Amino acid sequence: MATVLYLGPSGTFTEVAARAAFPERHHRFVALASVPDVLEAAEAGGDVYGVVPVENSIEGSVTLTLDWLIHHVHVPIVAEWVLPVRQHLLAAERTARLGLGAVEAVLSHPHAIAQCRAYLRQHLPGACIRHTSSTAEAARLVAEHPDRPWAAIGPRLAAERYGLAVLAGPIQDSAHNATRFFVVGQLPYPRQSERAKTTLLITLPHDYPGALYQVLAAFAWRKLNLTRIESRPTGKGLGSYHFMIDVERPLGDVLVPGAIAEIQALGCAVRVLGSYPCFASGDEAERTAGL
Amino acid sequence: MATVLYLGPSGTFTEVAARAAFPERHHRFVALASVPDVLEAAEAGGDVYGVVPVENSIEGSVTLTLDWLIHHVHVPIVAEWVLPVRQHLLAAERTARLGLGAVEAVLSHPHAIAQCRAYLRQHLPGACIRHTSSTAEAARLVAEHPDRPWAAIGPRLAAERYGLAVLAGPIQDSAHNATRFFVVGQLPYPRQSERAKTTLLITLPHDYPGALYQVLAAFAWRKLNLTRIESRPTGKGLGSYHFMIDVERPLGDVLVPGAIAEIQALGCAVRVLGSYPCFASGDEAERTAGL
Repeated sequence: MATVLYLGPSGTFTEVAARAAFPERHHRFVALASVPDVLEAAEAGGDVYGVVPVENSIEGSVTLTLDWLIHHVHVPIVAEWVLPVRQHLLAAERTARLGLGAVEAVLSHPHAIAQCRAYLRQHLPGACIRHTSSTAEAARLVAEHPDRPWAAIGPRLAAERYGLAVLAGPIQDSAHNATRFFVVGQLPYPRQSERAKTTLLITLPHDYPGALYQVLAAFAWRKLNLTRIESRPTGKGLGSYHFMIDVERPLGDVLVPGAIAEIQALGCAVRVLGSYPCFASGDEAERTAGL
Repeated sequence: MATVLYLGPSGTFTEVAARAAFPERHHRFVALASVPDVLEAAEAGGDVYGVVPVENSIEGSVTLTLDWLIHHVHVPIVAEWVLPVRQHLLAAERTARLGLGAVEAVLSHPHAIAQCRAYLRQHLPGACIRHTSSTAEAARLVAEHPDRPWAAIGPRLAAERYGLAVLAGPIQDSAHNATRFFVVGQLPYPRQSERAKTTLLITLPHDYPGALYQVLAAFAWRKLNLTRIESRPTGKGLGSYHFMIDVERPLGDVLVPGAIAEIQALGCAVRVLGSYPCFASGDEAERTAGL
């Protein structure tokens, strides 16, 4: 039995991802208050995994997750899980019986509200919008005030967790909305996949214009596909960046260590943040053309 | 007389940047509530400029600014201004007379608090921390309650704006903390600089692994220095990105249009977000080694 820590509160998409990644019922699931809390607890070791969001197809990177993996913890990424974001309109039984027309206020995280803008304009043009700190917090507030004409936007799981009815859904405007999660831990992830990635943190040498091009050359001539390149500040001033690069091969692949050695020979610092199997729920098989 | 719109409230680092970029006293300075408000008003044209933060050396990109420039407005970047972030501890006269030992609560934006963590631990280990929506909001709250033993963390300008005394400063932990601002507008920026950049938005073709490497090659063989490369989601699913690339040359340089034409011939979409002079206040001459 493993302990699976995830970014809480309970009933968010991160819990959906945690339960998809660890479908066996006997695991212990614990919601923690912040991304640093999850990463630090997973770093401490034992039969403990952490699940945190890393990237959304609309909002982009979760920089807090990247920066903690870069600067504050040393815990390997052991799996990737991609989840479609499917927002639903959730309400207490009384409001649900009255129907959509009865909803006077819609509560959710600003990102979730933004993701359902077209739906809200069409179906609830007069509703007042209230922002909350998470989709689960919105569901909790709606459940706590069952007599108010309120609805929350959130995952179907939040309806289960807080005893709400699903009024409508999925209601997000884009079918392409997906979030990528990392599973981190000191023990290997218990399942295999045909797809694997290696995430490298590469820091270019000072005073070497063109170094990034040379780094990409080391991958390109080996036909190693990159699925993502993300720059994050080193903290040493504007213009100084770490590059987080996802290679679409496991570290055990014969070509990857050669590319790393070549990049190090250029004077770059290279840290392997993880080499891990990749999974997706539902229809979210990731694009694999690469950069 | 130009109208200079900046991300408010009054007394933040963005106002400091706006006044540095337009030092003539006769301009009209107006604080707006959000980055989209500033960009949309500047897009409308006339003798109007907008000033918004785009990147901090510790926090990274201001993704709201990038995403609005990419997806929602068409207004050119006409200047870059880099400003050192110098945090100060600000208090009402009464608290200032009693000295540091009297401060029981410190108010500021979470980023400003984080930037002064070492100072607070050493000098105010017992003070309670309260987060506010901006450094200026913290200064306003402190000024409104002059009898409370409170201090705000913010720029020196906030002391002027809200009638506070400077108890200590600069107090931020890192000397490398700087923020980069864009000036946008439909008219050219009125001053020249020896340094210039061109910011390009490049979208790679589908199903062409290695395209990013080819894009960088077009710059590398011309020895066109890149100072930044940032990926932002296109909104079409995970793995699909725009790349915002800063080239350290003006668009009028003989080599830049050739590079753009070559990149377009690869099947990439290229949009010029601006070609602009670069300025820095104080000691923040930017690193120029390039990527």
